[in-house]
Amino acid sequence: MKTDPESYQQMAQRRKAGFERKKAAATREKGLLIVHTGNGKGKSTAAFGMALRVLGHGMRLGVVQFIKGALHTAERDFFESAANCDWVTVGDGYTWNTQDRAADVATARKGWEIAQQMIASKNYRMIVLDELNVVLKYEYLPLDEVLAVLNSRPDALHIVVTGRHAQERMIEAADLVTEMRLVKHPYRVQQIKAQPGIEF
Amino acid sequence: MKTDPESYQQMAQRRKAGFERKKAAATREKGLLIVHTGNGKGKSTAAFGMALRVLGHGMRLGVVQFIKGALHTAERDFFESAANCDWVTVGDGYTWNTQDRAADVATARKGWEIAQQMIASKNYRMIVLDELNVVLKYEYLPLDEVLAVLNSRPDALHIVVTGRHAQERMIEAADLVTEMRLVKHPYRVQQIKAQPGIEF
Repeated sequence: MKTDPESYQQMAQRRKAGFERKKAAATREKGLLIVHTGNGKGKSTAAFGMALRVLGHGMRLGVVQFIKGALHTAERDFFESAANCDWVTVGDGYTWNTQDRAADVATARKGWEIAQQMIASKNYRMIVLDELNVVLKYEYLPLDEVLAVLNSRPDALHIVVTGRHAQERMIEAADLVTEMRLVKHPYRVQQIKAQPGIEF
Repeated sequence: MKTDPESYQQMAQRRKAGFERKKAAATREKGLLIVHTGNGKGKSTAAFGMALRVLGHGMRLGVVQFIKGALHTAERDFFESAANCDWVTVGDGYTWNTQDRAADVATARKGWEIAQQMIASKNYRMIVLDELNVVLKYEYLPLDEVLAVLNSRPDALHIVVTGRHAQERMIEAADLVTEMRLVKHPYRVQQIKAQPGIEF
């Protein structure tokens, strides 16, 4: 790259102009449907990072954790004790621990009823539906029903849906979609175990 | 997918067996070099989500923010007031705002000196080097020097490096690499502006 002062300044000016142009064109405010999917790490973690921002702004946060993550304890402790947050964990563990489809369907339905109440209440600025993509992948809930509710969300509400295997129609419905792609993982290659602060 | 109870149970059992096998093989603990890169959102946000976990476990956290993000205020407020966290923001703004390469190099150097002191101190369980990839992409710091320090980090220290354009050698040195890939972004397409709780 060119590093002489003049080229550098020109490059910086072009960047700044582009940034300002985009910013000026973006004038709408809207409750977003945000999807984090992919086989990599950071889907729920980034959702909870946004959730932290929402609390930081004094706004109200709702969380429904559809698949109880035994490893999510540290942030769960934090959010559960936060003043502006309602956190609900449903589910008896990972799918492959219950080994009972009817039970998993009932659990998903329970979580979805709570999520619908939260959405309808208009009490929240953001609602995180953690691992909902996985629930839909396994067809524990009808996609049509879920999308109808998400698409008719209140104007000011951001909804964040996480989990692998986001359905194509979920991606179509979303405003903002990020795929967390696994490039390199230590547990497989180096046989390093899950560690506090990283995984839970 | 097969949803009859017997197939379901067999699938669940196979999954559980695979999960247990991997878990049993993974016995090592190690301070990880973690890289979040890509053109999508969630790189810093997921790093701060992990940082929240670290604090939740009562462990000490260090953060050096190499490129001052005017938009990061909500989580910055939270972490700066947290008891177990040292948060340092260097830099006078985005590259395209300073328009002065020598100043940007000096700023990067200042942040790197602080980062090195944090790493050498052995006081931290996790250190987040926010936007270091961008610093290296612009060659504000020599990659050789940075990698030598990261590779000789203390055993128990996790280092998280964020930013677009991670260098190939950074990826090679890392234990865990996730690419946040932009699938769909509302600001470009729908001209929706940055909103509190989402972007800052």
